[in-house]
Amino acid sequence: MRFSKLSSAIAITSASAQKFPDCVNGPLANNTVCDTTADPYTRATALVSLFTLAEKINNTGNTSPGVPRIGLPAYEWWNEALHGLAFGASWGASGNNFSYSTSFPQPILMGAAFDDELIHNVASQISTEARAFSNANRFGLNYWTPNINPYKDPRWGRGQETPGEDPFHISSYVNALVAGFQGGLDDLPYKKGVATCKHFAGYDLEESGGVQRYGFDAKISFQDLRDYYLPSFQQCARDSNVQSVMCSYNAVNGVPTCADEWLLQSLLREHWGWTDEDQWITGDCRAIQNIWDSHHYTSTPEQAAADALNAGTDLDCGTFWPTYLGSAYNQSLYNISTLDRSLIRRYASLVRLGYFDPASVQPYRQLSWSDVSSPVAQKLALQSAEDGIVLLKNDGFLPLSSNITNLALIGPWVNATTQMQGNYYGQAPYLRSPLVAAQNAGFNVTYVQGADIDSTSTAGFTAAITAAEKADVVIYIGGIDDSIEDEAKDRTTISWPATQLSLINQLSNLSTPLIISQMGCMIDSSSLLTNPGINALIWAGYPGQDGGTAIFNILTGKSAPAGRLPITQYPSNYVNQVSMTDMNVKPGENNPGRTYKWYNGTPVFEFGFGLQYTTFNATIISPSPNAFEISDLLSNASTYKDLTPFLTLPVRVSNTGSTKSDYVLLLFLTGSFGPTPYPKKSLVAYTRIHDVAAGKTANSELKLNLASLARGNENGDLVLYPGDYKVVVDIDGKDEWGFALNGKEMVLDSWPEKPKLG
Amino acid sequence: MRFSKLSSAIAITSASAQKFPDCVNGPLANNTVCDTTADPYTRATALVSLFTLAEKINNTGNTSPGVPRIGLPAYEWWNEALHGLAFGASWGASGNNFSYSTSFPQPILMGAAFDDELIHNVASQISTEARAFSNANRFGLNYWTPNINPYKDPRWGRGQETPGEDPFHISSYVNALVAGFQGGLDDLPYKKGVATCKHFAGYDLEESGGVQRYGFDAKISFQDLRDYYLPSFQQCARDSNVQSVMCSYNAVNGVPTCADEWLLQSLLREHWGWTDEDQWITGDCRAIQNIWDSHHYTSTPEQAAADALNAGTDLDCGTFWPTYLGSAYNQSLYNISTLDRSLIRRYASLVRLGYFDPASVQPYRQLSWSDVSSPVAQKLALQSAEDGIVLLKNDGFLPLSSNITNLALIGPWVNATTQMQGNYYGQAPYLRSPLVAAQNAGFNVTYVQGADIDSTSTAGFTAAITAAEKADVVIYIGGIDDSIEDEAKDRTTISWPATQLSLINQLSNLSTPLIISQMGCMIDSSSLLTNPGINALIWAGYPGQDGGTAIFNILTGKSAPAGRLPITQYPSNYVNQVSMTDMNVKPGENNPGRTYKWYNGTPVFEFGFGLQYTTFNATIISPSPNAFEISDLLSNASTYKDLTPFLTLPVRVSNTGSTKSDYVLLLFLTGSFGPTPYPKKSLVAYTRIHDVAAGKTANSELKLNLASLARGNENGDLVLYPGDYKVVVDIDGKDEWGFALNGKEMVLDSWPEKPKLG
Repeated sequence: MRFSKLSSAIAITSASAQKFPDCVNGPLANNTVCDTTADPYTRATALVSLFTLAEKINNTGNTSPGVPRIGLPAYEWWNEALHGLAFGASWGASGNNFSYSTSFPQPILMGAAFDDELIHNVASQISTEARAFSNANRFGLNYWTPNINPYKDPRWGRGQETPGEDPFHISSYVNALVAGFQGGLDDLPYKKGVATCKHFAGYDLEESGGVQRYGFDAKISFQDLRDYYLPSFQQCARDSNVQSVMCSYNAVNGVPTCADEWLLQSLLREHWGWTDEDQWITGDCRAIQNIWDSHHYTSTPEQAAADALNAGTDLDCGTFWPTYLGSAYNQSLYNISTLDRSLIRRYASLVRLGYFDPASVQPYRQLSWSDVSSPVAQKLALQSAEDGIVLLKNDGFLPLSSNITNLALIGPWVNATTQMQGNYYGQAPYLRSPLVAAQNAGFNVTYVQGADIDSTSTAGFTAAITAAEKADVVIYIGGIDDSIEDEAKDRTTISWPATQLSLINQLSNLSTPLIISQMGCMIDSSSLLTNPGINALIWAGYPGQDGGTAIFNILTGKSAPAGRLPITQYPSNYVNQVSMTDMNVKPGENNPGRTYKWYNGTPVFEFGFGLQYTTFNATIISPSPNAFEISDLLSNASTYKDLTPFLTLPVRVSNTGSTKSDYVLLLFLTGSFGPTPYPKKSLVAYTRIHDVAAGKTANSELKLNLASLARGNENGDLVLYPGDYKVVVDIDGKDEWGFALNGKEMVLDSWPEKPKLG
Repeated sequence: MRFSKLSSAIAITSASAQKFPDCVNGPLANNTVCDTTADPYTRATALVSLFTLAEKINNTGNTSPGVPRIGLPAYEWWNEALHGLAFGASWGASGNNFSYSTSFPQPILMGAAFDDELIHNVASQISTEARAFSNANRFGLNYWTPNINPYKDPRWGRGQETPGEDPFHISSYVNALVAGFQGGLDDLPYKKGVATCKHFAGYDLEESGGVQRYGFDAKISFQDLRDYYLPSFQQCARDSNVQSVMCSYNAVNGVPTCADEWLLQSLLREHWGWTDEDQWITGDCRAIQNIWDSHHYTSTPEQAAADALNAGTDLDCGTFWPTYLGSAYNQSLYNISTLDRSLIRRYASLVRLGYFDPASVQPYRQLSWSDVSSPVAQKLALQSAEDGIVLLKNDGFLPLSSNITNLALIGPWVNATTQMQGNYYGQAPYLRSPLVAAQNAGFNVTYVQGADIDSTSTAGFTAAITAAEKADVVIYIGGIDDSIEDEAKDRTTISWPATQLSLINQLSNLSTPLIISQMGCMIDSSSLLTNPGINALIWAGYPGQDGGTAIFNILTGKSAPAGRLPITQYPSNYVNQVSMTDMNVKPGENNPGRTYKWYNGTPVFEFGFGLQYTTFNATIISPSPNAFEISDLLSNASTYKDLTPFLTLPVRVSNTGSTKSDYVLLLFLTGSFGPTPYPKKSLVAYTRIHDVAAGKTANSELKLNLASLARGNENGDLVLYPGDYKVVVDIDGKDEWGFALNGKEMVLDSWPEKPKLG
């Protein structure tokens, strides 16, 4: 063996590391792929031209073996970075370099911060750490992140991976995220990383009533696709220029998405102009195989393999393509140029990442272990949890008075470690539980778990009650976690786990004040809201590596809460009113409507809800015209008409209370325009204003464009309709401004026609 | 993404995991390689027949990409398991499963135990843990272990990886080790693991005076090859049936070993009968390339690639083969059948490991995380360190009296962590330093490092002296470590680092008793031996995960020391008397001779030295005849004549002191027979007798065969010579038995003729 002379990287990385090709002394040195003056397409084409047919086919799966004989190393395309490095990372041994990386909160909590700049900073830090790991051959250059399917049903086990239920919010979030992941287009010739917007499209069900995601055919109207399911993908591909998209397990209206030429080719590539040679589509893991064995869309595996390739999929996560593209080729089910195109796209993407270029000239190649979990990153992880936490109820007991010293901490999240990370998590530098954080904050703490997440055992109740009686205040930290909601695990109930609720009720009957921190995604907390024995309620989701600290910084007032719910909290009975498989967002038979836009019942807490330790007022500086001719609005239209600016709305925000605080400024649109029924309202702009001192005023501007006003029609066209419009500040209507659009309705965007099936 | 339905392994392993092929549903299911009734050769041949030429060439490097299109996964051949899992292991995140495995002492310390059963148990545990990791796709099935080059010069940086300097000792050790690694041949159709005896042959130099191992041409006489450099390899391949051998960086007598057809084909394969289709040879990492670029043995890389293949090397650790075997083939430098043979051997080896067979029928495939670092394994790691520790000096102060409570621990090894593991180490479950162990043993400890391993700083002396003055006893724990001796790092001095020795001398002038634990490999401790201010001296090498505990168990007498030096401790001046590059073991010009067999000076401590806390006597029950006709001895010879039994020598061992103790029974042969000069003596048998109570006697039997008596002649023949022989018990001659061989000398083994070079 020989360590020291080969390279230091070999000595510290696992055997199957993510290595870079040697364009100096390797066999590729004289190939055009190593010519930094050539363009990515030319370079990738030169590389792929060296492959034999068998080598091409061998490199169609996520674990691409490369072509050792020409010096092309293996490359693992499957890397995860949902809220920090996860699957795909080769971790160093404990105590060594690369043994951890920053673990941010789950997107559902970061979404609650409603702060695009925060998201950009988080994504930028994640991709910095990804590059540091990559430079040590411990991670790839692309990641199958973010998950931008709108979280329309609280039962969905993967809702935690998303920023929430609202398509505008997700779009704005993903725009910040992709820029952070991929790096600025303007500063460098190299991409920092490759993000993958997933799962395209209509995927938001794991398993419900025997229906599995692998074979589920999502029936979605064109109108709902336009208004709800596709905006985040349009933003990601067309407007945020993501490098990669993942097609999903499910079918949409009869066609498995990875075989859907209309979705992948006509809409995504041609209509959205997502046609750079280095942009590529991966199938979800085993999704291509599912075309055949779950959807039964083809009668042979070869046909499924070829259909996906011909439809525009470029990579198979799995081994189905390497296995069947050979026989599919022998059956003349695809042209070799189509296979080449898929390879060229992916290797061109690696070219854009500097994979074949000298490390010395690439700033991102200089990132190292010292850039991982830096003090700034650690602070950002804490801040992103604090900023997302939502104050749902407060009788004035919060923030905790400084004379409180004895805490009883009760509940199955008090001593949380990886629980705080949710799913798709990696190795954190530390996991500061609420228990540790309370001790660090100087409290005298008695900890009793009291109840499990979801068992019927009441064995811990007595100890919990005893501890509670002796304390100055009880802080109950519980709710749900990944044992209840996760990938491949949809919920069937959205109630509080019964034993936990029973313990909370008993605690609420004591004279000791009681505060609840609800963890995980939404569960019906209506009884906590109305129970006068509960002084305060916060929601802290999955708060990541420093979650305990974040919770206690909020409870003690070290940080002021300003997060807003990015999802509706429905009453428990909601799950009986609509099926998980019903993709309609508008109310109808056996469907009370979905999200704050359409739900016709009374939510427990509505989308956008969130209190502060202070009060805010907001006033719109009303623009002078309040009527607009539609034709005028389009007289100077942008290339994509929906992106044509409408106006910028100045809003003045005043802190009318006595505590410095952030304020999340939400702007909703409502009115009577377009097809009936009308949505109750739609979020059209938001911003988070930081650190408004008590008694002070801050001015903000919210930009609206024509897409803010438009709606989809039955064909899926995006249309600007005449009618009466009103923008409303915040969920309690702090101010509003009405205006009218006059003239004839005008189509802003029309999709290519979808071929009729069968 | 999809975790739960694919397999649980995917969710927990890194992206480029060591996966098994799917012989049930995968594309290979109907190939003969998946037919468990066929023999390994037939199965591997059927597999390789599916490869295209390019795929064959792609799979000639250590990181084999497999052939995804036929469902053959990637396989990483480079796995290390020197004294526990190391490079190649994919570790779980800290706190999770598979985040560590048992880390035993370095072989040099385990060798000092002179206990083959212990070595078997250690190797068996390592391969159990390797299988557990493999079953979780975290490790390969073969490992490039053991290192069995005899450790003939104390400067060699990798001597720590070997069991010592004596060829018989190494042979006996490796026999136990290989059986432990590979599993019993009799119990299962499957190999447990594949061991790799390395580095074949004549490799024991990293870098000396500008000569680097990569291009070093070791000039070795046939006699020395026979008597010193090759016995461990003959044992490993011919007699212990190892599955894999590694050729080395260096050349032997002008031919780089990986291109040496005589070594690899004529000797190893044909002469030693190492011809199973599943036995294979790997080159050391980049050794094949070195044939061309360091040895300049060929003028083109293609010729070097082909030479190694044609000589019988089957795998390239590196990417040289994948890069150049294509153009070499185009130049007709080898036949395709030769390439096929190399692939078939390796895949047949995987067949023998059950790689292609259902997991359910394979006991080794059932091993799991619960089999890693079990209580038994943890105890074994501690025992193997205790059993190796050698007591070098003791004025009666050891074991420590029970009324000692205040310890001053001084030295750069007191707070050792990974230092205790030496090189090629993995993640240990814990690393109990001497400091921790002393505290666990209930001592009141003051720790002052006092001196670095090798700096000139004396800044810590004052604090060390102060602490020493206040203590009941000073325990100094220091010496050398991997910062001084390691792979690619030979020493140039074998003295104590000067600053440490200076501190020890100052401590020895105090009235506080002083004990030294010397760590790392041998350094000249002659001044410690003669210094009356030093009460006791032990050598503890690199004692592994529980090294601190082992040291304190010895010092306190909880365990009684019985280890023996497996290497000669030379005086410092030795390094000036002979060059590292001089391969002659016999004395000559500028060479005082090597090892206890030939060194003509006075060692500081000789090979086999080691005290106990008690005294032993040993008597040979002399066999009745003491003269033998050589022709009679061979009248009923074994297939390999040298393995013909000679006799079994009964030895009675008595513990004549007052402390229960193990006793290492060493039997040396001396006499006047064969070519002159005669070696001083040669170890021919040993055993470790456990737990002999004070005043008790134990009977042992030592087996001798004709190889025990034979010597090499100038041609490298192994010859039984007439002459006067004597076996001697222990280094102090506790008993001896003389006998004569009469008649005509007889050749026991004659090597195939080596072709004359150019």
